[in-house]
Amino acid sequence: MMQSDVIEADLNRITITDPFLGEYQRLIRDVVIPYQWEALNDNIPEAEPSHALANYRIAAGLEPGEFYGMVFQDSDVTKWLEAVAWSLSQKPDSELEQTADAVIELLAQAQCEDGYLNTWYTVKEPGLRWTNVAECHEMYCAGHLFEAAVAFFNATGKRRLLEIACRFADHIDTVFGPNDGQLRGYPGHPEIELALMRLYEVTREPRYQALARFFLEERGQQPYYYDIEFEKRGGTWHWDNWGEAWMVKDKAYTHAHKPLAEQNEAVGHAVRSVYLMTGLAHLARLTHDEEKRQTCLRIWNNMVQRRMYITGGIGSQGIGEAFTSDYDLPNDTAYGESCASIGLMMFARRMLEMEGDAHYAEVMERAFYNTVLGGMALDGKHFFYVNPLETHPKSIPHNHIYDHIKPVRQRWFGCACCPPNIARTLVAIGHYLFTPRQDALFINFYAGSEAQFTVNGRALALKIEGNYPWDEQVTIRFSQPQAVEHTLALRLPEWCEAPQVRVNGNAAQGDIIKGYLHLHRQWQEGDVVTLHLPMTIRRVYANSRVRHAAGKVAIQRGPLVYCLEEADNGAELHNLSLPKTATFREIQGVGVLKGKVLLQAEGLRVLTAQENKPLYSFDNRQTAVEKQMLTFIPWFSWANRGEGEMRIWVDEA
Amino acid sequence: MMQSDVIEADLNRITITDPFLGEYQRLIRDVVIPYQWEALNDNIPEAEPSHALANYRIAAGLEPGEFYGMVFQDSDVTKWLEAVAWSLSQKPDSELEQTADAVIELLAQAQCEDGYLNTWYTVKEPGLRWTNVAECHEMYCAGHLFEAAVAFFNATGKRRLLEIACRFADHIDTVFGPNDGQLRGYPGHPEIELALMRLYEVTREPRYQALARFFLEERGQQPYYYDIEFEKRGGTWHWDNWGEAWMVKDKAYTHAHKPLAEQNEAVGHAVRSVYLMTGLAHLARLTHDEEKRQTCLRIWNNMVQRRMYITGGIGSQGIGEAFTSDYDLPNDTAYGESCASIGLMMFARRMLEMEGDAHYAEVMERAFYNTVLGGMALDGKHFFYVNPLETHPKSIPHNHIYDHIKPVRQRWFGCACCPPNIARTLVAIGHYLFTPRQDALFINFYAGSEAQFTVNGRALALKIEGNYPWDEQVTIRFSQPQAVEHTLALRLPEWCEAPQVRVNGNAAQGDIIKGYLHLHRQWQEGDVVTLHLPMTIRRVYANSRVRHAAGKVAIQRGPLVYCLEEADNGAELHNLSLPKTATFREIQGVGVLKGKVLLQAEGLRVLTAQENKPLYSFDNRQTAVEKQMLTFIPWFSWANRGEGEMRIWVDEA
Repeated sequence: MMQSDVIEADLNRITITDPFLGEYQRLIRDVVIPYQWEALNDNIPEAEPSHALANYRIAAGLEPGEFYGMVFQDSDVTKWLEAVAWSLSQKPDSELEQTADAVIELLAQAQCEDGYLNTWYTVKEPGLRWTNVAECHEMYCAGHLFEAAVAFFNATGKRRLLEIACRFADHIDTVFGPNDGQLRGYPGHPEIELALMRLYEVTREPRYQALARFFLEERGQQPYYYDIEFEKRGGTWHWDNWGEAWMVKDKAYTHAHKPLAEQNEAVGHAVRSVYLMTGLAHLARLTHDEEKRQTCLRIWNNMVQRRMYITGGIGSQGIGEAFTSDYDLPNDTAYGESCASIGLMMFARRMLEMEGDAHYAEVMERAFYNTVLGGMALDGKHFFYVNPLETHPKSIPHNHIYDHIKPVRQRWFGCACCPPNIARTLVAIGHYLFTPRQDALFINFYAGSEAQFTVNGRALALKIEGNYPWDEQVTIRFSQPQAVEHTLALRLPEWCEAPQVRVNGNAAQGDIIKGYLHLHRQWQEGDVVTLHLPMTIRRVYANSRVRHAAGKVAIQRGPLVYCLEEADNGAELHNLSLPKTATFREIQGVGVLKGKVLLQAEGLRVLTAQENKPLYSFDNRQTAVEKQMLTFIPWFSWANRGEGEMRIWVDEA
Repeated sequence: MMQSDVIEADLNRITITDPFLGEYQRLIRDVVIPYQWEALNDNIPEAEPSHALANYRIAAGLEPGEFYGMVFQDSDVTKWLEAVAWSLSQKPDSELEQTADAVIELLAQAQCEDGYLNTWYTVKEPGLRWTNVAECHEMYCAGHLFEAAVAFFNATGKRRLLEIACRFADHIDTVFGPNDGQLRGYPGHPEIELALMRLYEVTREPRYQALARFFLEERGQQPYYYDIEFEKRGGTWHWDNWGEAWMVKDKAYTHAHKPLAEQNEAVGHAVRSVYLMTGLAHLARLTHDEEKRQTCLRIWNNMVQRRMYITGGIGSQGIGEAFTSDYDLPNDTAYGESCASIGLMMFARRMLEMEGDAHYAEVMERAFYNTVLGGMALDGKHFFYVNPLETHPKSIPHNHIYDHIKPVRQRWFGCACCPPNIARTLVAIGHYLFTPRQDALFINFYAGSEAQFTVNGRALALKIEGNYPWDEQVTIRFSQPQAVEHTLALRLPEWCEAPQVRVNGNAAQGDIIKGYLHLHRQWQEGDVVTLHLPMTIRRVYANSRVRHAAGKVAIQRGPLVYCLEEADNGAELHNLSLPKTATFREIQGVGVLKGKVLLQAEGLRVLTAQENKPLYSFDNRQTAVEKQMLTFIPWFSWANRGEGEMRIWVDEA
């Protein structure tokens, strides 16, 4: 299964040329990154204060003041740095790079002599470092620092941030571990594991991989470390929004209730789960660890076969931002955090690297083109943290089951995790497009891009053209001067019933292995592979164990899940149904939906009862049904035309 | 509209002879009242401690100790006394009466010199009386004392408890009011208003009516009294489960956000709302106050036309046990507190007395035969506080939107409001059966009973026979020796399409006014009125604005709403549907459901997907449908056969 390694470095040389994703990357560059910079500097009066850069300046002794913000406020800066790094790799910008360099110098000044770097603890709680790893995100912040460092090094070749990261990692490696005098702790919010694995891939420092392994293997062992440190610090706790010391007590929330090798289900906080599994899958692949691989497979299968929304969203409940139980997928109270779907993409990517199975790419694509894209408005200025599959805005403010639901995207959040996470994912999307394994170059989906991969010391250069995921035609052109013998593994998407692949005009000859068409040949300059991926409009049905989708249908075209919105279809969307026999036609979106394919079909509407009609009546005497043309839009683009109802799952008549 | 007064006293002489309700009354007498007595005395090891009688003994100086329990713990004793009183009026029991007398003496000993009686404040917080009427239930407890006193006086003719109540009411009347030196407060939990009105009807003391009026009219005036007392006591608060001083701040929760005359919607805590409106409607009728009547009509109409479940449940959300917004009626996260439906019956009864309109009786009957009966198990030992319309037990422990939902009835509650409330309602059900107005004797539903009413000084004695609500045939026999000229107003239930009424064998002649058939004649001994009320099995549809019932149908027979239960139909009830054309047959229940009419119809089942089938699939390739006989049981009798799924609203195919 784990025949081959992945050549990560080449992923940093991918350029996105896709008209659709290109526009998103432009938004990240021109809108999101500058806006976040202003937010980090507290220059946006209407946003909640950030103070994140000020915290670093105070920690560096450059100005007086108090720490302000969440215990993980530092990570807002490093996530911004990571987004900047990937953006610079897409489009150089010397001014932006200088700004980033200055921030990196600030981090260097804020770093302690021994390598420790966390402004909450150096400014607000000096002397209390590493006393509450269950709740206090020191290692989470470290992980985001490491990820930013890897990205910045890959994008610019500059080592300054990488050195800061390694000094901190080295320090952590002295504090935590199995030896006498070391703490046998592990982080309440996973992230450092996956980040240490990335740091290892860049530095090849075995201690980083060993430390990641320690955290992953120590997790959930008894006696519980969270209880030990809780006792040691006198029974204090940090978070009390859901009860006294709840995060210490509810160990399943942080996936520390038992060792990972004994865990079988996706439980607890969804983001923590997928971040954790991303690190585990990465380690499993690199170390050929079958037990860890089996753990990944078990958790993955439970997650995507029983606990994932059709949108690639995960986490069915607001309280705990958490998984619930098998097949419990309510639509209007869904959490489906944007960051959780980003984490699911990361987990899927690591599984794909290990397994070479298109199943993982299917999920990755589903999460990306639906929940992740949907997390950001088409203006790049507004974001969803929570991504329900159905909304009825009039009811939201009055029923507490909707406390976590916003009917429109918000400008910024006090807990600002999702916007920078979406930003860094969009600018680094090349890492998900391709999986360059030694046995084959896997192309996972077909966003327009230019890339170059090293195969046995030779360059394989290719360009993907098309207008994915709108157009059915994809062209892949090779341009390396020297022929390269290699296998190209092209994903044949599950949503496509009859894909056609040609090489230089001739029907492609190859084996379909785990959903990929494997084409082995001497790839020459001028070779052209074309894919015709018919985007039939598909009706999707949920497994009959999902009670919230019973009797309902969802519409999908290509990887995009569609929905009804009030803007096109009027209010009371629950009164609309789609006959089994209805046929669809495609229309072009206009206005803010320009460039998007919309779908129309003739449906039925139960007419809205007049005011003051009885709540309940016998024998349906008052029900009138009429025909109505239904317009479906890609779900990721909902809530771009003001507040209104939305629903994905529609009654099938 | 308000032509006539109601002769309340006669309601105390009604004897229930109904086989169905008689069995419930037996349960109350033989099981519930003795069990609650043991609970009040802390003789039940597995129940949460009550300490309620001990609190009184400590307050009376009879034993040392500390107060234990909720701020409204006293009311558990007075609610028990009220249930005992109504039970004694149904079936004398000298031993029980002696026990009650002893409790009443204890209350007398615990009462302060000035009439004040509340053990929380005399034992636990002496000197702090009346400093937090927003949160601390002193007047709520007073109200339950008054209700118990009225009931005990009516049942036994003994005045001891009535004197205790009046002394306390007189004290409250000196403390609260519009005069200088009086507090302009009103209770956070309404109850005293309706209780003062009852006390007024027994004592004819005008100060009690005036005090009720003061509380009702002062409510919601600015500056807010809750804020005034909050300030005065230095900003402390009692309840912090939903945030600091939330009950003081969230004035809509207690219906104190604006004067009642300006309120248009049923909002906030559902029990508080209907208790409040019960007092208001009573006052409006007695004082012919058109403004108050209009307020009652507005709130009523909003409540029952937009915010009531088909079960007569109210309160769509668990947090705040509260109303949400128009047509927001989720089934599986419903609150529908048993006590709220009891309060709805009380409100309906007062509206009916004022309006003589069968609409109010429809709602009263719906709430009683569905949610109120459903609140107690068929063994009399287990209770529902919360009454959802749909449950999926496997999901309940894992999704926090279900935190308030129990899949099976519980033995007792720390906050023990519902069990004694159900008990007192069941033993006093005669008060709801008949509405003896001066213009007519209204018979609201047809439970077997014997009653005697005074009409112009003469006795009108009648007996209702049948087996309501199972059998279609009802017989009313008159037995007073002297002929009495009066109007009998017989409700023609809305659920009945073709009621037939005969007087001494001949088709009845009379006018149908507001849903009642008004029969005026000289009623003689031996007169027999028969009603044939065909109980066709009816399909019920919700108003099309109710999104949670879209495409779904509920089944009703007579006043009873039916449901599917896993015990009869297997799991995954969401996969069942009822074809539009399906016809029903009646079958007799067996075992614990003996004596109940069950319904069967041929339905369809989407087969449950096998383990590990994909969550989502295209084009419904995997869906198989087969025929299945569906068995519907009366919803009030669900959860008497162990834990399992249940649903009322079923997909209509």
